[in-house]
Amino acid sequence: MTSESDLREQLATCTRIFAMQGLIGLFGHVSVYEPEAKRVLITPGMGSDKAMIRGSDMIAIDLSGQALEGKGGPPIEWPIHTSLHAARADALAVAHLHSPYATLFSIARREFRPVTLQAALFGNGVPLYTEAKLIKTTRQGERLVELLGDKRAALLRAHGIVVVGKNLEEVLFASLVLEDDTRKAMQAASLGELGYLSLEECRAFDADIDLERRARRAWNYFAQLEARWDHQPGTGYSTFA
Amino acid sequence: MTSESDLREQLATCTRIFAMQGLIGLFGHVSVYEPEAKRVLITPGMGSDKAMIRGSDMIAIDLSGQALEGKGGPPIEWPIHTSLHAARADALAVAHLHSPYATLFSIARREFRPVTLQAALFGNGVPLYTEAKLIKTTRQGERLVELLGDKRAALLRAHGIVVVGKNLEEVLFASLVLEDDTRKAMQAASLGELGYLSLEECRAFDADIDLERRARRAWNYFAQLEARWDHQPGTGYSTFA
Amino acid sequence: MTSESDLREQLATCTRIFAMQGLIGLFGHVSVYEPEAKRVLITPGMGSDKAMIRGSDMIAIDLSGQALEGKGGPPIEWPIHTSLHAARADALAVAHLHSPYATLFSIARREFRPVTLQAALFGNGVPLYTEAKLIKTTRQGERLVELLGDKRAALLRAHGIVVVGKNLEEVLFASLVLEDDTRKAMQAASLGELGYLSLEECRAFDADIDLERRARRAWNYFAQLEARWDHQPGTGYSTFA
Amino acid sequence: MTSESDLREQLATCTRIFAMQGLIGLFGHVSVYEPEAKRVLITPGMGSDKAMIRGSDMIAIDLSGQALEGKGGPPIEWPIHTSLHAARADALAVAHLHSPYATLFSIARREFRPVTLQAALFGNGVPLYTEAKLIKTTRQGERLVELLGDKRAALLRAHGIVVVGKNLEEVLFASLVLEDDTRKAMQAASLGELGYLSLEECRAFDADIDLERRARRAWNYFAQLEARWDHQPGTGYSTFA
Repeated sequence: MTSESDLREQLATCTRIFAMQGLIGLFGHVSVYEPEAKRVLITPGMGSDKAMIRGSDMIAIDLSGQALEGKGGPPIEWPIHTSLHAARADALAVAHLHSPYATLFSIARREFRPVTLQAALFGNGVPLYTEAKLIKTTRQGERLVELLGDKRAALLRAHGIVVVGKNLEEVLFASLVLEDDTRKAMQAASLGELGYLSLEECRAFDADIDLERRARRAWNYFAQLEARWDHQPGTGYSTFA
Repeated sequence: MTSESDLREQLATCTRIFAMQGLIGLFGHVSVYEPEAKRVLITPGMGSDKAMIRGSDMIAIDLSGQALEGKGGPPIEWPIHTSLHAARADALAVAHLHSPYATLFSIARREFRPVTLQAALFGNGVPLYTEAKLIKTTRQGERLVELLGDKRAALLRAHGIVVVGKNLEEVLFASLVLEDDTRKAMQAASLGELGYLSLEECRAFDADIDLERRARRAWNYFAQLEARWDHQPGTGYSTFA
Repeated sequence: MTSESDLREQLATCTRIFAMQGLIGLFGHVSVYEPEAKRVLITPGMGSDKAMIRGSDMIAIDLSGQALEGKGGPPIEWPIHTSLHAARADALAVAHLHSPYATLFSIARREFRPVTLQAALFGNGVPLYTEAKLIKTTRQGERLVELLGDKRAALLRAHGIVVVGKNLEEVLFASLVLEDDTRKAMQAASLGELGYLSLEECRAFDADIDLERRARRAWNYFAQLEARWDHQPGTGYSTFA
Repeated sequence: MTSESDLREQLATCTRIFAMQGLIGLFGHVSVYEPEAKRVLITPGMGSDKAMIRGSDMIAIDLSGQALEGKGGPPIEWPIHTSLHAARADALAVAHLHSPYATLFSIARREFRPVTLQAALFGNGVPLYTEAKLIKTTRQGERLVELLGDKRAALLRAHGIVVVGKNLEEVLFASLVLEDDTRKAMQAASLGELGYLSLEECRAFDADIDLERRARRAWNYFAQLEARWDHQPGTGYSTFA
């Protein structure tokens, strides 16, 4: 089992990588869940400096959103995290991001379907939460849980995305993949009709690769880059190519 | 009441943040008004180095555009600022920007409507000033005031935008929100039809949030980033995500 | 009259600014003409490091392309420059650029028309040189001169642009304006039909402003930024906003 | 003949330039072949830090993919490289890249055709490998060889590109040209119909230029820039203009 101290550091690293890659900034938050202790570690809310965040900056809350530790309380949209952690054993990590490209699919009237091999992991779809409101109540959180089902990610209309994973490595990789896929979809759309991957192709691809291994490699890659990033306000955006 | 010295520093900070985020550069100017003294503090005109601007660089003018203090006189389009400061008690701060994405809506024949939750504050529209000229006379300034009515922002055809607020924090936040919303609208448009927020949804969102608090959080966030920005010519563009 | 030493420094500054702004890189060249001496100073050809160029790196040639001074000879497309310098008294400075956005109008089957006020100076059009070849002969140079007439710029099909001016300040400003206008046209086009400026509006705008003064202000602005640019390979792209 | 030590350094330089230009990152690999020794030098697989890679990091394999030297074995898609090196005497260097713009043509249902003069070298087309799988077997590699024929590059559906050349300079130049051309095609497409180069125009352009000389100049240019790059995670993207 990972110690809380290690979890805090992993959460901080994950968040700084998201900041480096331009997926988190003024808004957005990431959490990780300790199921035995029923304890959620979550990044602080709007306006915290994600590019410089440390493990000791994390807020600890329980599943009812009660602050247990940390300065300033959790982000106002904490029910996104607590609802998913409580409902799904495979959602030990959750990211809510206003990522620039994935969010476009919460605006355009066009269903998400994967256009790149890596995004095969979203082959069963990314549903859209249509209510044009922040998710601030457990009731809303439950509706999100229901909408999501067993899927990996949801789009929040006119707002952003939610990505879940069994650990932070998986959430990081899945979020970067979704961002890359949606950017390419948006850009390729100006060239003409998009060639989507079929559900069969997605399943075949997923069966063929070891997601855990790929997620770990991606984590190590971006963690290495983040370690030598100068943390200038400009994102240190590293190509996902 | 804020001292003029503090106002000058706030105006400088606001302008440097706009420079960092790529919303101001060769062109554009920002002003703040002291209603008791009927005194306008405004950034210098075309070609001043906004990324490095200091409080002592500001120009003080009266409502007729007369220079009271500062080197080089006000920007040639000072009537944008004086007209709005004089006409609206809720326009104590005014920004005129050639911001890259919002300006697109002054070019394309397509009315602005919000596509993101944050932009609910522009729910009652952003009208278009259609005259293809710089705004250099008080007569033009008055037409802008009339066009704007009680709205927060206007588009200047083939030119840029004007954003007003009750203080610099509000103008900064509103300008960044408008830029982010228009960028997303432009990009999402290549994916298909846009899903706008309805007026009702905008009103509900606005009623639900505390704009002043959000604007202050955004200000503090970007001021913190600007403080550690290396001020390289390349904008230090920080994600609004 | 400007000394050759000063002209060399101005040419170097102009080129470094173009590099900073991403308008010149592996390709592209800029020249300035001394009419009394019938001597052309031109930047070296493909592959020279424009971001670091110095006055002493310039090549001097005569109007027949004969190298008079400097290492490595002139760029292979020197006839672009000599033809225009010889034919037009108001073309004392000439830039040939593969600028990323203006070049798009040499690819898409769509005529250039200005969409921003500053681009009123291109109100009488930017003609297209349709031959899909480098311009390596004086014969081709003459065809370019004929095509250009009294206009400020031409598009070279599938290739780039040529911009002329009575001095380097004017060429710098006009090139940056054209790039900014074409970028906005391209991006706004995804939002819908473009609202062009009419010829009358362009003429009225041009009559109203002092191009020389604006060009000098832009020069001073970008020269100041270039002086503090760290010259990293990434362009230091400063917003034209 | 180039020594293996020199080949390793060239391969490292080429890869760092690709990283600087944003064509390689988490994914992608580049190889060079020593035909006498039937030995392939290839960059390590997913997650290696391409921006910092050194000659000593390269993996040596034989044509059956057997590791001869180096830590961690070759990338899983080694058959891309071995198949092409074995089959074509003019494919002594091979790059597999997830380059951001060229990859769009593997997604959109639109055939690649050149829109810029430099891309005349792709005048005979860039075929599409349609199988939505990684290329992990020699059988797949052979299908790629067959598809490619005598062409310079192929698109891998929903995945990336493969570029071959008689040396690393040619592969670097061709890859950068393809990326630049596809970026311009994508952007120009939002302005309207694209004006392609005809096959005749491509042939005439290619006959007229000295590819080897241009590739060497481009190599020297980017190597010089890479030498002064600060290697920050953000790509040092230098304009191809």
